[in-house]
Amino acid sequence: MRTLQVKLGDRSYPIYLGEGLLARAGEFLKEAGCGERVGVVTNPTVAGLYLKPFQEALSRAGFRVTSILVADGEEHKSLKSLAAVYDQLIRARFDRGSCIVALGGGVIGDLAGFAAATFLRGVPYVQVPTTLLAQVDSSVGGKTGINHREGKNLIGAFYQPRVVVIDLAALRTLPRREFLAGLAEVVKYGIIEDPALFALLEEKLERVIALEPDLLEEAVGASCAIKARVVEKDEREEDYRSVLNFGHTIGHALESLTAYEKFLHGEAIAIGMTQAASISVRQGLCDEESRRRIGLLLRKAGLPTEIPSLIRVEDLVKKMEVDKKSAGGKVKFVLCEGIGKTQFCWLSAEEIAARLSA
Amino acid sequence: MRTLQVKLGDRSYPIYLGEGLLARAGEFLKEAGCGERVGVVTNPTVAGLYLKPFQEALSRAGFRVTSILVADGEEHKSLKSLAAVYDQLIRARFDRGSCIVALGGGVIGDLAGFAAATFLRGVPYVQVPTTLLAQVDSSVGGKTGINHREGKNLIGAFYQPRVVVIDLAALRTLPRREFLAGLAEVVKYGIIEDPALFALLEEKLERVIALEPDLLEEAVGASCAIKARVVEKDEREEDYRSVLNFGHTIGHALESLTAYEKFLHGEAIAIGMTQAASISVRQGLCDEESRRRIGLLLRKAGLPTEIPSLIRVEDLVKKMEVDKKSAGGKVKFVLCEGIGKTQFCWLSAEEIAARLSA
Repeated sequence: MRTLQVKLGDRSYPIYLGEGLLARAGEFLKEAGCGERVGVVTNPTVAGLYLKPFQEALSRAGFRVTSILVADGEEHKSLKSLAAVYDQLIRARFDRGSCIVALGGGVIGDLAGFAAATFLRGVPYVQVPTTLLAQVDSSVGGKTGINHREGKNLIGAFYQPRVVVIDLAALRTLPRREFLAGLAEVVKYGIIEDPALFALLEEKLERVIALEPDLLEEAVGASCAIKARVVEKDEREEDYRSVLNFGHTIGHALESLTAYEKFLHGEAIAIGMTQAASISVRQGLCDEESRRRIGLLLRKAGLPTEIPSLIRVEDLVKKMEVDKKSAGGKVKFVLCEGIGKTQFCWLSAEEIAARLSA
Repeated sequence: MRTLQVKLGDRSYPIYLGEGLLARAGEFLKEAGCGERVGVVTNPTVAGLYLKPFQEALSRAGFRVTSILVADGEEHKSLKSLAAVYDQLIRARFDRGSCIVALGGGVIGDLAGFAAATFLRGVPYVQVPTTLLAQVDSSVGGKTGINHREGKNLIGAFYQPRVVVIDLAALRTLPRREFLAGLAEVVKYGIIEDPALFALLEEKLERVIALEPDLLEEAVGASCAIKARVVEKDEREEDYRSVLNFGHTIGHALESLTAYEKFLHGEAIAIGMTQAASISVRQGLCDEESRRRIGLLLRKAGLPTEIPSLIRVEDLVKKMEVDKKSAGGKVKFVLCEGIGKTQFCWLSAEEIAARLSA
C-alpha cells in the first residue's frame, strides 16, 4: 500500500492506494474521524459488484451503514438525483457527525461530494473511486458538483474529502474501454509534469493494460501525486490548477458537439491532447519528436487522436469560446513544451482554427 | 457611516453601515473587486421599493445589472427557487467573475448566498440586507442555505460575502411588527455579550423604535460587531458560534409547533430568551433581577415572552430533541449568567420540562 498526502492546511487528507483496500475501508474511516453513521452513495452497477462486502467491512468496524443508490450515467448527475440523496439522508436522520462515502466513478464522486458539501452546511465525506478516471482525477482535489442541462458541472463546490481510498483491484471489473479512457488522463500527467511517468507508459504500456499490480500502483500513484501537488498550489482553480485542462479545451468541445455519445471523456481528451501538441509545435513551443511520441503512445493505448472528419473546425472553435474558461474573446489554452512542461496561452478563435487546420 | 471588519483571513470582508448606503452600493462593489456583471436577487416587495434606484446606482458605477426575482416568503427558500436562480444566471451567461447581490431580508440573503456558493463552484456575492433581522444577523457570517420540507436550513453552505452594505434608511419601510421582531435579536446580543447595549435599549427603546439614526447605527453596529467577533472565533459553528442560539432552542421548537404561522422568528426568540433566562435562574446560573430585566425589555418592545397556553411543554421538548443541535438524547442549551455572559449546558428532556413547568 502507498500513502500520499494532500496538504491543504486544516483541509489536508491522505490518499491510500493499493490492492484490496475496500475491505479495509472501516479502518481508514475511523482514522479520518468519521462518526458512526455512514451513507454509501453508489450506483446499481457498482453496488452489484462491491456494495455487500463493502458494507460488511464497514459494519465490522462498527459503522452503521445506509446505502443510497443513484441511477447509472452522466445524465443522473443532476439536481433531481441530488434532491433524492438529500431526502434519503434526512429520512435516515443523518446529523452533522454522519459521513458520506462515494463508492463509484466520477459521477458518484461528484454528486455525493456535492451532497456532502451542502447537507447541513457540510458533513464529512470519503472518496472510494472504482474507475481509473476517478482514481487518478476526480476523487482527488475536492471538485464536486452536478450538471445543468446547459452544461456540465455548472453547479458545485470546492469541498475536500477526509480521505481517498483507492482499491486498484476494482479496476479488474472495469470495462476495458473505460480503463483505456482513464489511461488518457495518466498520459496527461506525464505530458504536463512527469517525463518519467510518460516514459514508463511508453515502455510498459502492455503490462499496465494487463493490470500488473506494481505498475498500476506506480502509474496511479504518480498521477495522484501530481494532482495533489497542483491542487495544493491552487485549490480553487484561480490560476495554475487549469494546467490539468491540457487537452480538455478541445476535448470538452468534442464531447459537447457529439452530445456526449460518441466519446468517453478520456477518448475526447486523447484527441484534444494530440491536437494541443500540434498547436504547441505550430506555436514554436514544442518539438516535433515530443508531438510524435504523444500521438504514438495514445494510439498504442487504443485511443483516438484525430478530430473526426464530420466535425467542422469552425463548430469546434465556437464551442470553445463558450467554455467557462474563456474570457474577452480569447480561449485559455494549455500548451506543452515537449514532455513534462506546459505553458498557458490565450488564443483567439481565428488563431485556433488556423493552427488546427494547418 | 460606520465600517466594521469581519476578520477571517483570505475570507475577510467589511460591513458598511449608515443611512443612504444603497445609493453608494456601486462604490462598495468596486472596492470589493466585483466584476462587471451583477445579478441582483430580490423579491417583488423589496423590488417595488428599492430595485430601480439600486440598479441605477450600480449602472452609474459601470456595472451591468440583471435582476432575478424570487417570490416573497419563507416557503420560497426552496430547491425550486434555487433552480430558477441557476437557470437565470446561466441564461444571462454569468461567469466566474460575475457577482451576485442579495437585496432583501433573510430569505433572499440565504438563498442568493447559497446560489453564489454553488454556481460555477462559487462566485462572489454581496449582502444588502433590508430588514433589521437580516442586518443584525443573517447577512453577517456566511451562513447560506435553503429549507427542506422536513426542516429549515437543512441544505446550505458556509460561504462568506465580499462585503455587507447595511442601509439603515431601508428600515423606514419595514413593517413595525417586523422591526420589533428584529429587535429581539439585538436584545439577544446584549444578553449574550454586551451589557452596555442592553442598557442602551432599556434606556432609549422608544427612540430606537422611532428609528433615530444615531441610535439605530449604535444598536445595529454593536450587534454586527458581536456577530463578527463570534464568527471569527468559530466560523463553521463547531463550538462557540452556537452561543448565538440563545433563545433559539425553544424559539425554533415554538415556530415549528405553530407551523411558522403564529410567530415571526424574532417573536418566537423573545419567548425563547425569556424562558431560557428562567431556566438559567433555576439552574442557579442567573440572578432573578437579570431575568426580570430581560422579560421587561422584551415586553416593552411589544414582544411576547410567554409560551402560549395551548402549547404543551412535552410537545415543545420533543421538538427540541430532533433539532440539529441535539446529540445523545441531550439538548445543547445556551443559558445566561446575568446580562452579558453565557454558559453552554446539556439538558435532558426531563430536565428541560421540569424547569419550564416550575
